[in-house]
Amino acid sequence: MSKRIHSYQPRVGHGLPHDPIASILGPRPIGWISSRDADGRLNLAPYSFFNIFNYRPPIVAFSSVCEKDSVRNCRAVGEFVYNLATRELAEQMNLTSAAVAPDVDEFSLAGLTPAASKVISVPRVNESPVALECRVCEVFQLEGADTALIDTWMVLAEVVAVHIDESLLRDGIYDTAAARPILRGGGAADYFEITPQARFAMRRP
Amino acid sequence: MSKRIHSYQPRVGHGLPHDPIASILGPRPIGWISSRDADGRLNLAPYSFFNIFNYRPPIVAFSSVCEKDSVRNCRAVGEFVYNLATRELAEQMNLTSAAVAPDVDEFSLAGLTPAASKVISVPRVNESPVALECRVCEVFQLEGADTALIDTWMVLAEVVAVHIDESLLRDGIYDTAAARPILRGGGAADYFEITPQARFAMRRP
Repeated sequence: MSKRIHSYQPRVGHGLPHDPIASILGPRPIGWISSRDADGRLNLAPYSFFNIFNYRPPIVAFSSVCEKDSVRNCRAVGEFVYNLATRELAEQMNLTSAAVAPDVDEFSLAGLTPAASKVISVPRVNESPVALECRVCEVFQLEGADTALIDTWMVLAEVVAVHIDESLLRDGIYDTAAARPILRGGGAADYFEITPQARFAMRRP
Repeated sequence: MSKRIHSYQPRVGHGLPHDPIASILGPRPIGWISSRDADGRLNLAPYSFFNIFNYRPPIVAFSSVCEKDSVRNCRAVGEFVYNLATRELAEQMNLTSAAVAPDVDEFSLAGLTPAASKVISVPRVNESPVALECRVCEVFQLEGADTALIDTWMVLAEVVAVHIDESLLRDGIYDTAAARPILRGGGAADYFEITPQARFAMRRP
């Protein structure tokens, strides 16, 4: 670091025009989560507080600031689908981020087609080239280092079925960049796309 | 999705030359985690099972397949530092991923300089342009959807102090791409770099 460092404590204040934390911890993978409530009403929404946390079995996690429909559905039904958000589907993904009433089906809102899953009861987004059917392991509320509860819920789930458009497999190897995944940056509008040119190789020593 | 879909259930087998899951859920942000044990021995290692999960206060999480030194240190000391892994520091970050004995200090191994933190007792990487001092909230073992415990530990922590090289602030706004962060893809060697050209803007509807 150079000698000119901006330092702050988040609980005191960042002292900048915008909170930089989501721009620092970015860009982030997007969990485009389809779910349904107990009555079968569908929900679809993007979460960039999302990642994989174990390989075998694959465990993914997302969190929702405030207990949004996706979290309530995960609690009620115990299932969701991760759909890959690609550059081609970016505008439609963005439409599903609108704050709408629980009875609004974001599949319809964004002109997307629900397709039946194989193992679980929640449909995937047919237009997306990759879908992961997930069974919820745990839903819990986050807490700060002072143990005070935070109004944010975390969902951990196991991937129980995987669907990949075969156009993304090269000799059976999944080609990350070929899918043109999009990632969420900070600020109100920042996204990043992944292209083959962005790739470089480093082998573990 | 086209009509040619490769589908599988992870617990049964992926039926491909390589497990595609880490390539699908990628590229991923890297938590380059410095920690220390109770005797003050330093550790530094990259984790791509990492992300932010809450804004205010900022909560980050990483997981470690097998209970590695970083997790043991987080449990013993309750603190760690997130350091930003940039394109410039990629080779050094890669050196810190070597599987070495607990008494090996990866700062020395990679020729990096520990710099004192402000709030916690664990040093940051001086060469990295961003550091987040973190206090551990929870350390727990993951479980599958069948509730069986998995040999992977998850660490949740609150960011209690932030340090940003001022060269990354434009009119006080943090410029994600200017830092040239690197992300982890799948396979043995895949990384991606983020450049300003990769950015696009979409406002929430």
